[in-house]
Amino acid sequence: MKCLILAAGKGSRLRQRADSKPLLPLLGVALIERVIRTLQAAGIGEFIVVTGYRGERVRAFLATLAQRLDVVIETVENPDWEHTENGRSILAAEGLLTEPFLLTMADHLCDAGLVRDLLKAPLPDNGLALAVDHRLDNPLVDPDDVTRVHTHDGRIGAIGKGLQPFDGYDTGVFHCTPALFDALHEAGGQGDTSLSAAVALLAQRGRADAVDVSGRFWCDVDDEPALRRAEDALLTRLRGKTGDGPVSRWLNRPLSIRLSRHLVNTAITPNQISLSAFVLSVLAAGLFMLGGYPALVAGGLLAQLASVIDGCDGEVARLRFLGSDYGGWLDAVLDRYADALLLFGLTWHAWLESQDQVVLVIGFLAITGAFMLSYTADKYDGLMRERGGARFRMGRDVRVLLIAIGAIVHQPLAVLALIAILMNVETLRRMVVCRHA
Amino acid sequence: MKCLILAAGKGSRLRQRADSKPLLPLLGVALIERVIRTLQAAGIGEFIVVTGYRGERVRAFLATLAQRLDVVIETVENPDWEHTENGRSILAAEGLLTEPFLLTMADHLCDAGLVRDLLKAPLPDNGLALAVDHRLDNPLVDPDDVTRVHTHDGRIGAIGKGLQPFDGYDTGVFHCTPALFDALHEAGGQGDTSLSAAVALLAQRGRADAVDVSGRFWCDVDDEPALRRAEDALLTRLRGKTGDGPVSRWLNRPLSIRLSRHLVNTAITPNQISLSAFVLSVLAAGLFMLGGYPALVAGGLLAQLASVIDGCDGEVARLRFLGSDYGGWLDAVLDRYADALLLFGLTWHAWLESQDQVVLVIGFLAITGAFMLSYTADKYDGLMRERGGARFRMGRDVRVLLIAIGAIVHQPLAVLALIAILMNVETLRRMVVCRHA
Repeated sequence: MKCLILAAGKGSRLRQRADSKPLLPLLGVALIERVIRTLQAAGIGEFIVVTGYRGERVRAFLATLAQRLDVVIETVENPDWEHTENGRSILAAEGLLTEPFLLTMADHLCDAGLVRDLLKAPLPDNGLALAVDHRLDNPLVDPDDVTRVHTHDGRIGAIGKGLQPFDGYDTGVFHCTPALFDALHEAGGQGDTSLSAAVALLAQRGRADAVDVSGRFWCDVDDEPALRRAEDALLTRLRGKTGDGPVSRWLNRPLSIRLSRHLVNTAITPNQISLSAFVLSVLAAGLFMLGGYPALVAGGLLAQLASVIDGCDGEVARLRFLGSDYGGWLDAVLDRYADALLLFGLTWHAWLESQDQVVLVIGFLAITGAFMLSYTADKYDGLMRERGGARFRMGRDVRVLLIAIGAIVHQPLAVLALIAILMNVETLRRMVVCRHA
Repeated sequence: MKCLILAAGKGSRLRQRADSKPLLPLLGVALIERVIRTLQAAGIGEFIVVTGYRGERVRAFLATLAQRLDVVIETVENPDWEHTENGRSILAAEGLLTEPFLLTMADHLCDAGLVRDLLKAPLPDNGLALAVDHRLDNPLVDPDDVTRVHTHDGRIGAIGKGLQPFDGYDTGVFHCTPALFDALHEAGGQGDTSLSAAVALLAQRGRADAVDVSGRFWCDVDDEPALRRAEDALLTRLRGKTGDGPVSRWLNRPLSIRLSRHLVNTAITPNQISLSAFVLSVLAAGLFMLGGYPALVAGGLLAQLASVIDGCDGEVARLRFLGSDYGGWLDAVLDRYADALLLFGLTWHAWLESQDQVVLVIGFLAITGAFMLSYTADKYDGLMRERGGARFRMGRDVRVLLIAIGAIVHQPLAVLALIAILMNVETLRRMVVCRHA
C-alpha cells in the first residue's frame, strides 16, 4: 500500500525554528522522518510526498531518507500551495493513486498501532475511513485548533473546526479510496478546496467511516506549545520501558530522560554514551581504590551518575531510531565490566581500611554474585515472561545505588556483604524456580 | 504413520544378559526403548509391537514406556513364535495395518536420519522399500550373520544370508505397503515363513526398492560381540559433540566417555553428576586456599578430574535420553561458580605466598575475564554459527587445564596472569568482531 503525505504548507507558527516545517527536528529527528518511520513500522514501504513551501529542500532531504530507510519516496509539487487549502495538495497526486491508499500529514505524529488499527477496519466502497480519537480530554490536543468530528454508529456525520456538537477529533490519518479525488473536485467546484469539505461530502453520502483509535498516541505539531507537548509525550513514553528495575524507574529514568532531551540534539551516538558511562564507572572504581573517605564519596556519586547516564544510550537510540542489537549487547557487556570494577574498587577500599582477609572473600562473593545474576537473567526472565508473572528485579540499577549509598555512608564492607548475600541467594532461588518450571 | 516392530524372538545368544532380548539394556536403556525413541525422533507416534518369548514382560514394559514417551503402543501376540520364522510375526499384525507402514526389529538400532531417508524415498505401489547399506566394510556388520542384498538400479534383485554376489546389507528397516502380507502368505504357502522370502517374491516382480542409507548408523544386536560394537559406536558418537574445545576433544572426552559407559548402568542422574563435579571443584579451590605446594598439586589434579567428570553429565543425558534444557543450564551455571572459585582459590594461594597486592588485581582480572568470556559466548557463537566459520575455542576445558598445570608446576600467579590476558583480550576481540558483523 502507498501512503500520501502532505508536506506543502508553510507552518508559519513554527517558522523561526526550521527552514521548512516537515524538516523541523523534534528530539533530533525531522518531523517528516518520524512520520515515515512510523508508517514503515506499520508495514508501508512506498510514499508519495506533496511538497510546496521550500519544496527543493524537502525533496533533497527525502532523497537521502529513501536511501537510508530503504523505502520508495516519490515527490509531487503543488505549485498552488500558497493560495489554496490542503485538498489541492491531494489532487496534485491524483494521477499516481488508483488503488486504496493511506493519507496523512507531515506534521501529524502517531504510533504505528494507530495506523494498524485503521488498516484493520473495513474501508467503505468509494469512500474513506478516518482514525478518530474520542478521548475529548486528550492533553495532546489543542481544542481551539483541532478538527472536530461528530460520529454516529461508526460513521462520520459532520466534520470541521469549531463544530458543535462533536464527539471526537480528526487524527489526520485516513484510509482512502480514489473516490476522494472526485469528492475534492466536487468540493472545489463549490468553492472549498479543503480536505474537510471533501470528507463532509462523502460523509453526507454515508461513505466516511470513523475508526475508533482512542488511547493511541497522536498529535498535530502546529505551534511551539504543541511541539513541546509532542516532545514531552515521546520522552514520557520512554519511562514505560519494560525491564526497568525500581531504581531505574523512580530515580535514574526521570533524570536520564532530561539528559536525553538534550543529547538527541547533538551528534553523540548511543554507543558513545555507553562508553562514556563505562569510563565514568572506571573512574569511580579508581576513586574507591585511592582510599580515604572523600575519594570514596566522590566515587559513589560518580558511580551513580554513570548509572544514570547509562540509561541515556537506550533512550537516545529509541528517540533517534539508532537502536541496534549490537548497541544493546555492547551496553550489557560494558555494564558487566563496570559492575566488576566498582565492586573490586570497593573491596580494595575496605581492604585498605581493615587489612582483614575476610574482606577479600566477601568482595569475591559480591563480584561472583553480580555476574551470576546477569548470567542467569536471560533464562529466568524468559521463563517469567512466559508465565506473565511479575519479576523480582534486582538488577544493575539497584546494585549501583547500593554501592553509591555504601560509599557515601562509609560502609563499603557492609554493602559488599549485602550485595554478596542478595545476589547469590537470588541466583540460587532462580536455580530452584527454573528447576520446578 | 504406524511402525510395526518385531520383538517375538528369544535372542538365545544374549539370553544370559536379560530376561528377554527386547528388554536387554544397552548403555542403560532397553533395546526396544532405543528403537522406539529413534523412531519417535523421526516423527513416528504410533507403534505395533509383536511379542512372543516372555511376551507378558515385554508388554508390561511397553505399557509404562507408552506413558513415559507419550506415544501409542499396541501389542500383538504371535503364539507361534517358537516354530516359525519372523514373517509369521508380521502376519500377526495383518488386520491392524491397512495403510503404508514402517517395519523394523526390536534388536536393530539405527539413527533417526536413516528412517527419514527411507521415508523420503518413493514407495513402490503394492511393494516395499528397504534401507540398504552399501558400505560393505561397515565395521558394525557381522558378515556371517547379516542378510545380504543384491541391487540393480535402486531395485532389490536378490536377498538372503550368504547371498553371492551381493552389493549391500539389509539394515532391517522397511517401508511397506500392505501388499507385504499377501507376499508373506504366498511365501508361507511355498514353505518359507521368513520375511526375506516375501521380500524376494516382491523383488522378482520389481516391487522391492533399495534405498541407499550408506553412511548412516545402524546395527543388529544379535550376540555379545555385536552388543559391544553397538555400545562402542554409541559412545564414539558422543565425541563428535560440536562445541567441544581442544582439551575436551583430545583429553577430557575420551576419559569421560569411559566413565559414562559405567555411569549409565547406575541410577545416577546427569544433574547429580553436574553437582558432583561442582563439589569436586569447590574442594579443589579449598585445597588451593590451604596454601603449601602439596595441597596446590592436589587441588590442580582434583580440578582437572572435576573437569573430566563434568563431561559425563551431558554424555549420560544423551545416552539415557535424560537431556533437558534445565540440565544444560544448571551445568553452565555451576560451571561459572566453579570457574570463579578455582580462580579465587589460586589467587588466594598466590597471595599467601607473596603478600603482593598485584596478585589481587591479577586474580580479579582473571575472574572477570573468565566470566566475560562466558557472558559473550552466546552472542559470539551465534554469530560464528551464522557465518559457518571456525570458532576459536578458549572455553572452560582450556581454562581448567591451565589452572591444573599452573598448580602442578607451582606457577599460580603466572597462570592467573595468562588467563587474565587471554580471556580479556578474547572478550575485547569479540566486541570488535561483533561490531563489524
